[in-house]
Amino acid sequence: MAARTITFLSDYGHDDEFVGVCHGVIRRVVPYAVVIDITHGIPPQDVRRGAIVLRSAVGFMPPGVHLAVVDPGVGTDRRALAIRCSGEQVLVGPDNGLLWPAAARLGRIEEAVDISDSPFRLQPMSATFQGRDLFAPVAAHLARGASLREAGDSIPPEDVARLDLPLARAGDGEVSTVVLYADRFGNVQLGAERAQMEKAGLKPGQAMMIESNGERHSARYGRAFAEAPAGHLLVYEDSSGAIAIAVNRGDAAASLQLEADDEVRLLRTEP
Amino acid sequence: MAARTITFLSDYGHDDEFVGVCHGVIRRVVPYAVVIDITHGIPPQDVRRGAIVLRSAVGFMPPGVHLAVVDPGVGTDRRALAIRCSGEQVLVGPDNGLLWPAAARLGRIEEAVDISDSPFRLQPMSATFQGRDLFAPVAAHLARGASLREAGDSIPPEDVARLDLPLARAGDGEVSTVVLYADRFGNVQLGAERAQMEKAGLKPGQAMMIESNGERHSARYGRAFAEAPAGHLLVYEDSSGAIAIAVNRGDAAASLQLEADDEVRLLRTEP
Amino acid sequence: MAARTITFLSDYGHDDEFVGVCHGVIRRVVPYAVVIDITHGIPPQDVRRGAIVLRSAVGFMPPGVHLAVVDPGVGTDRRALAIRCSGEQVLVGPDNGLLWPAAARLGRIEEAVDISDSPFRLQPMSATFQGRDLFAPVAAHLARGASLREAGDSIPPEDVARLDLPLARAGDGEVSTVVLYADRFGNVQLGAERAQMEKAGLKPGQAMMIESNGERHSARYGRAFAEAPAGHLLVYEDSSGAIAIAVNRGDAAASLQLEADDEVRLLRTEP
Repeated sequence: MAARTITFLSDYGHDDEFVGVCHGVIRRVVPYAVVIDITHGIPPQDVRRGAIVLRSAVGFMPPGVHLAVVDPGVGTDRRALAIRCSGEQVLVGPDNGLLWPAAARLGRIEEAVDISDSPFRLQPMSATFQGRDLFAPVAAHLARGASLREAGDSIPPEDVARLDLPLARAGDGEVSTVVLYADRFGNVQLGAERAQMEKAGLKPGQAMMIESNGERHSARYGRAFAEAPAGHLLVYEDSSGAIAIAVNRGDAAASLQLEADDEVRLLRTEP
Repeated sequence: MAARTITFLSDYGHDDEFVGVCHGVIRRVVPYAVVIDITHGIPPQDVRRGAIVLRSAVGFMPPGVHLAVVDPGVGTDRRALAIRCSGEQVLVGPDNGLLWPAAARLGRIEEAVDISDSPFRLQPMSATFQGRDLFAPVAAHLARGASLREAGDSIPPEDVARLDLPLARAGDGEVSTVVLYADRFGNVQLGAERAQMEKAGLKPGQAMMIESNGERHSARYGRAFAEAPAGHLLVYEDSSGAIAIAVNRGDAAASLQLEADDEVRLLRTEP
Repeated sequence: MAARTITFLSDYGHDDEFVGVCHGVIRRVVPYAVVIDITHGIPPQDVRRGAIVLRSAVGFMPPGVHLAVVDPGVGTDRRALAIRCSGEQVLVGPDNGLLWPAAARLGRIEEAVDISDSPFRLQPMSATFQGRDLFAPVAAHLARGASLREAGDSIPPEDVARLDLPLARAGDGEVSTVVLYADRFGNVQLGAERAQMEKAGLKPGQAMMIESNGERHSARYGRAFAEAPAGHLLVYEDSSGAIAIAVNRGDAAASLQLEADDEVRLLRTEP
């Protein structure tokens, strides 16, 4: 009963049994562990979105083992990983960049192992559902107290696949960036942070412009949705620390027809 | 391990990490509490539907702390609440009417506190994700045994925002009401109860008519879906005690093109 | 705290409170039991898909009580069941074939009881939500240690409703089968297994053809998605042991416009 917490993120969705089967596999190893589903709503095979969401969520989770599976390369020779970061935080998943931003958020990678042939995997191991056969059981055994060295073969931490997120460019009175994704409420997260807004001279409380799809839209740069009138655009720092676009009591992604990777410019209009 | 049960209802959906992050925040305070997700499928910002569903579900939950977040006014000066009802039942959420019908169902409000500046909130507190920063941690601390007075500032119970649901009118041989919502199966819940049906002289087992969108449809007033032939309309008291419309082995909301707030008349055709 | 594990599968979806309410009912009986949601994404009233998914998942679950509700006949005189199979595995659900394939997978049915009037049911029992009022409380009491005989009236195991899944026909160089369903990733599960492929002389590693909707498509018979180039068709044995069709990094159900019950022929093209 002293097992560590396991968190779990994937692109498995809830229409099928994939998530439930992984829970079953975990519970056979550590019946009473706390297991937290971060989300399974990552769009299929969207490694970047999985990586961003994992990075954003991990700091709010109890320390423990963080299992993440968004794995378009399942069945290829891409490596499978377990990573130990500062503070005894452990990440388990495919070596395709998914784990990298969360690992960077948690601190230095102190140890990494290739778990592709882990003794904890289920056998026979399928070539199409390694969440069930490899990642979940390895995560469960690490949660019950196994060491990384028992789970796989040591690799140099610098060999872990990186994922570089799109960078915003800040100029005088202007931030150029791209859409990372839109959430359920239609709030649009951008690849920019407050530092770039400050560099461009954009100040909270000011009117500003959003340029996207060849059009300009008036917006307010604020903190809470209600700082814009109902139906109006708000640019704000979202709860994960990213600059985002919302419509107060509306859906910004639908209003501006924005989707992932669309270019967006944020423009100062007040001195 | 003696923490009280926490139930959790929201409009966060499962596409994003919002629900998972709240679970993480709760588990950092009360790792082994029982946490039950009532649903997170409330349509975005639909306070009325959240209130109806919470009221309907709460009687089937273990007693404890009931966390509910449907909060179009997040970041405004709307109050945030913890309420204690008879039987040591506690409700936590925004003061926008969401909690009112459930509180009325649970019995008298014995104590209410404004938790907007609760010492249990996470800091810095975002203006856009107070489920994570305010409501979840306050619910978790109340589940671990903190008192309402430790969580916030006392307010008079009569100051809690009410939510009045649409009332049905019962006349001779007729009940006039509105659609509250349709569920996954296309069953349509109305703002009427058995008492109004009785007052209008509508008796289970009888044929009757449904009038909506300017058309009349033959139906049976019964108890189980199978009392109507496959594909036919049934009016019945649903499992939450509301009068509802179904199509046996079909989808009544689609068949009758009904959505929330549409007017519906239920008409007696047999003596 | 010694309660047995409960797994739970249904067609309730996550938009409504149905799943959460069943969890509440279970937790009032066995607060600290491990409860695993296999999935609630079975399409409404699709007994066959529920049965296939339950059969495929149950072997990966901890032993215990397996609750399954896909119940188009709710409120009719269809029986409600609890079944005990070899190894003290228990299945609870409607007697409409839903439990049969899983029971066959778990081994011989050693005991069956009709729980329609179980003393463990909630009263008054609704005619429309027996997941809440009948199946969940019976499953919970069985998990806490009640015997089947306490839960209902003994019936002969051979009276349990069967569900026969579509059989594939294997001829020389050809397997004729039907689509069982497509999953979230667009992978299409067929009613065929490796034995039929072997009988037809189809060998992993070979090129082959898929015939459906009157057209033929080149494919590869392989093991992992990546054995087909991106965007190309792969026929493979999926993680549940069924023959399936995928598009590497794509959506086979959309590409081939396949849905449940569509006929598919798998054709050998190499000697």
